[in-house]
Amino acid sequence: MKLIDIHSPQDIKPLGIDDLKDLAKQMRAAIINYTSTIGGHVGPNLGDVEALIGVHYVFDAPKDKIVIDVSHQDFVHKMLTGRAQYYLDKSMFTHIGEFTDPKESPEYDIFYAGHTSPSISLAFGLAKARSLKKNCNIVAFIGDGSLSGGVAFEGLNNAAKLNDNFIVIVNDNQMAIAENHGSLYDNLRELRETNGQSENNYFKALGYDYIYVAEGNDLESVISALKKAKDTKKPIVVHLNTQKGEGYAPAEAHREEFHFSAPYDVADGEPLQQSNEPNYITDTRDYLLRKVKENPELLIISSATPEVFGFMEKERKACGNQYVDVAIAEQTGVSTMAGAARGGAKVIYPVMATFLQRAYDQLEQDWAMDNSPALMPVMGTGIRALTDLTHLGFWDIPMITSIPEIVYLAPTNVEEYFAMMDWALNQNEHKVAVRVPTYSYEHAKDDVDKDYSGLNKFKVVKEGQDVAVIAAGDFFVKGERVVEALADKGINATLINPRFISGVDTELLDSLKQNHKVVVVLEDGSKEGGFGGRVAQVVSPIGLKCLTYGFEKKFVDRYNPDELEKAYRLTVPQIVEDTLNALNS
Amino acid sequence: MKLIDIHSPQDIKPLGIDDLKDLAKQMRAAIINYTSTIGGHVGPNLGDVEALIGVHYVFDAPKDKIVIDVSHQDFVHKMLTGRAQYYLDKSMFTHIGEFTDPKESPEYDIFYAGHTSPSISLAFGLAKARSLKKNCNIVAFIGDGSLSGGVAFEGLNNAAKLNDNFIVIVNDNQMAIAENHGSLYDNLRELRETNGQSENNYFKALGYDYIYVAEGNDLESVISALKKAKDTKKPIVVHLNTQKGEGYAPAEAHREEFHFSAPYDVADGEPLQQSNEPNYITDTRDYLLRKVKENPELLIISSATPEVFGFMEKERKACGNQYVDVAIAEQTGVSTMAGAARGGAKVIYPVMATFLQRAYDQLEQDWAMDNSPALMPVMGTGIRALTDLTHLGFWDIPMITSIPEIVYLAPTNVEEYFAMMDWALNQNEHKVAVRVPTYSYEHAKDDVDKDYSGLNKFKVVKEGQDVAVIAAGDFFVKGERVVEALADKGINATLINPRFISGVDTELLDSLKQNHKVVVVLEDGSKEGGFGGRVAQVVSPIGLKCLTYGFEKKFVDRYNPDELEKAYRLTVPQIVEDTLNALNS
Repeated sequence: MKLIDIHSPQDIKPLGIDDLKDLAKQMRAAIINYTSTIGGHVGPNLGDVEALIGVHYVFDAPKDKIVIDVSHQDFVHKMLTGRAQYYLDKSMFTHIGEFTDPKESPEYDIFYAGHTSPSISLAFGLAKARSLKKNCNIVAFIGDGSLSGGVAFEGLNNAAKLNDNFIVIVNDNQMAIAENHGSLYDNLRELRETNGQSENNYFKALGYDYIYVAEGNDLESVISALKKAKDTKKPIVVHLNTQKGEGYAPAEAHREEFHFSAPYDVADGEPLQQSNEPNYITDTRDYLLRKVKENPELLIISSATPEVFGFMEKERKACGNQYVDVAIAEQTGVSTMAGAARGGAKVIYPVMATFLQRAYDQLEQDWAMDNSPALMPVMGTGIRALTDLTHLGFWDIPMITSIPEIVYLAPTNVEEYFAMMDWALNQNEHKVAVRVPTYSYEHAKDDVDKDYSGLNKFKVVKEGQDVAVIAAGDFFVKGERVVEALADKGINATLINPRFISGVDTELLDSLKQNHKVVVVLEDGSKEGGFGGRVAQVVSPIGLKCLTYGFEKKFVDRYNPDELEKAYRLTVPQIVEDTLNALNS
Repeated sequence: MKLIDIHSPQDIKPLGIDDLKDLAKQMRAAIINYTSTIGGHVGPNLGDVEALIGVHYVFDAPKDKIVIDVSHQDFVHKMLTGRAQYYLDKSMFTHIGEFTDPKESPEYDIFYAGHTSPSISLAFGLAKARSLKKNCNIVAFIGDGSLSGGVAFEGLNNAAKLNDNFIVIVNDNQMAIAENHGSLYDNLRELRETNGQSENNYFKALGYDYIYVAEGNDLESVISALKKAKDTKKPIVVHLNTQKGEGYAPAEAHREEFHFSAPYDVADGEPLQQSNEPNYITDTRDYLLRKVKENPELLIISSATPEVFGFMEKERKACGNQYVDVAIAEQTGVSTMAGAARGGAKVIYPVMATFLQRAYDQLEQDWAMDNSPALMPVMGTGIRALTDLTHLGFWDIPMITSIPEIVYLAPTNVEEYFAMMDWALNQNEHKVAVRVPTYSYEHAKDDVDKDYSGLNKFKVVKEGQDVAVIAAGDFFVKGERVVEALADKGINATLINPRFISGVDTELLDSLKQNHKVVVVLEDGSKEGGFGGRVAQVVSPIGLKCLTYGFEKKFVDRYNPDELEKAYRLTVPQIVEDTLNALNS
């Protein structure tokens, strides 16, 4: 049977094992073709081909509910639920998202589940609804890496008590993005090495029935195990030992590099394009390596995403015990940062803005309240970072700046970035987050300040009148262009680099009333709850008009940044037009 | 030895076991005297007397690091670290906080740890810092109830790998605030019933050495076990079986009621004051019970705090399988809400604002993005809720309203509250949070609206001119008084009940420019990142002055609400004064 002819899981039910194996082959070819052409999650999707064929062969979606975690390992699921053509027809590759998406398929994609670890708790919710309604199988399909997230434990702890059908399929490919961390993975290894027989069993300790499948890439083994689990009336874990990147030699050999890959040459797995341009990631990597060497009491923490600051295996090893990966566990990332800082270490915790959301409470309760000076570079922020709905870098400013006593700095260029990092490391008073730019890679035109201890002091870069443009972080370059464009209209505007986005310079803002009428605030983040609103709250009472620019509080998915800038009136001509209107009305 | 003569843990080192037991007796008497007089956490502190004496007898704080989770069980720790007088001298009772507090004792109180479950991760951070510095014992002291929080699992998963000293003391009193939930507690029971010998062992599965202490209220047993654990070079769990409320009969008999108690009569444990006044808690309880009866497909979720909506054992039982407690696990609370709603149930998840912080990511990723209409009443918000630093109800508006597609409603009185709840339950489109008032208990003066499907439509309660007062939620009553006071000054102000605080009525705000000059926004929450800032962002560009009122972005602890209102210029005369100044300048 041809993959293109699969329109729903029903189409594979009549197939024999050889047909299913042939289908697996076609799917692997499609995954390699797709990811090598436009990039994507290679290893995870190659590794779970048999597991997901098995799931759809044995269970009856959409009647049975399948929740995939983290859902970027869902390609086979999508191929089997009416979306095969998107992986076969090159012209359609970009028309499908990597994550399960209820808008794409309301029947088969129950949740987005774009961040790791929520599947069991979400499925537990489905199970609670089921207990009030009609019956079905409920399946949470979760990778080993995702089990380190606390919410996965919470879900296991609750779902075990269901006294009803509940199936957790653990797709154990022995990797998160990088290697796993934590003693749970010793237990998983012990279970693999004992063919599931070890007395120590995390899942059994939590009350689950347990089936181990040594050959998780063997369809017959998978199907046979899932058939045993189907319709059971007691929560069960099916533990599949799978191979990340299965069936594609470069992905099997380089599992971390092929977790997610940019377009590559299928012949040898080499990336099609390689850039040696300096960027914030490699600069950050080099800075961290230097600091580790300079200070033996400096600790770098990652929560399973070392690649976002350029740390591959070599760099991690180079840091020895000055580097700790807490696994996919941002809550513990923040608490470890706070604890180690309180214990007297210098600590740097570079973290993706979107994943930091998991640790909002820890930011306040474990870090901000305490005397734990540490440094948190926040990566992946703003309109030109990740564009997937589930990974937007829009919300970090409202999130972080709603918490007292965290100093959030927004550098406008490379030199200022590292000056801010240096200052943060060399002081012992403040808890400092730094918003790493993504909008562009700028160099300083003048000397940058070394000392940021005067909190919330804005820097006037150019004095003018009538209009003051306050341009934060990586939108400073946009502010410069707005001021230039206003100059063309005969307006000599003031230009301000606020540097701090967690507070405002009330004195400076107050002084603007002497010879300004309009204040324009630009930030590469959510407009609501962000920096601009704070400025508006200060300048509005003194009679200045305040125009704030940022992103609407809306969910957007796989957007074109240029188009979004236009839609949100963030282009220079639009800002200038609005400013002139405000000035003249 | 007299308790009052204990000034540091050193003072108990020379004592024999009988002296220590006598000390335990004095401490219990002090705890009962203290809590019966001013209220507090009775059962937890009575239950861990021997455990904490043991900790300070065996370990050498402050050299050894003790992290207590959740830290309201720390009375004995405080008594042993120079603060006994606060529990002995009635006039000093109110001068000490319930939680560990680094400001109170920088040496002995390492963290606040006011929310449950972070201790192991914080201690892991201390251990990572230790590995770069000098050696010491690191002890995380954690209740059984706190182990359900995902971050506790994350901490265990990481700390097990330390290959160095790390001691987790599990104070197992077989209770959270109410009963525990989840299969972990079956395992703890199995361990207790087998005297720690069961093959299923959650801690061993995670790689820990393990000691069980059947008599956790027996000092000799505790000390002997802790001595074994001290200085070990491998992470170890010491599992203490303790009795919540030990030594005070009413607290042993009524463990839930005596988790936290208002002042009570020591003779019989009866509360000194009982109010039969209607309030939002009992009203909510009655509403929930009614809705459960009306709709067999309605589910109520709690994350271990059923008492905040008046659900004691009787009410929980009455709901049968329409009630689920996910234990201390707000992440899973939100995911379960979202999952059950997606599964077709009607879902209500009443939750404390301060604890909801744990689920910020789930609010966005698991709830807001999906088509999961559910209802989340947010309790404990505003200036007159809990006043402990770690439990402030200040930050919910910035937190919730920074997320797209969650409708956050702020009722101004009881009738409006339930009209909003009814509307939220009877629609299938929106995800709705309702901010339950705490400022006062008001009744509607007129009919309240039934339909809130016109999102972000503000309600003009009284039309006027020059000044528009927009008073949100339970600060509406303050808005009424401001308008009255302005009338005394000859100003006929407009009064607006916004009803929605997650968005603004741009059309109405725009229309204000016709005959208004000043807009005053009042909210019972953080001024920065909140509702007022959003209004300012809309009215400032059209030339209106906007004055926003709320709480400063500052940490405050055990404050007097009246004094804080004054300090933040939230009293009616202050607001009127500012408004007149703005109008006339």
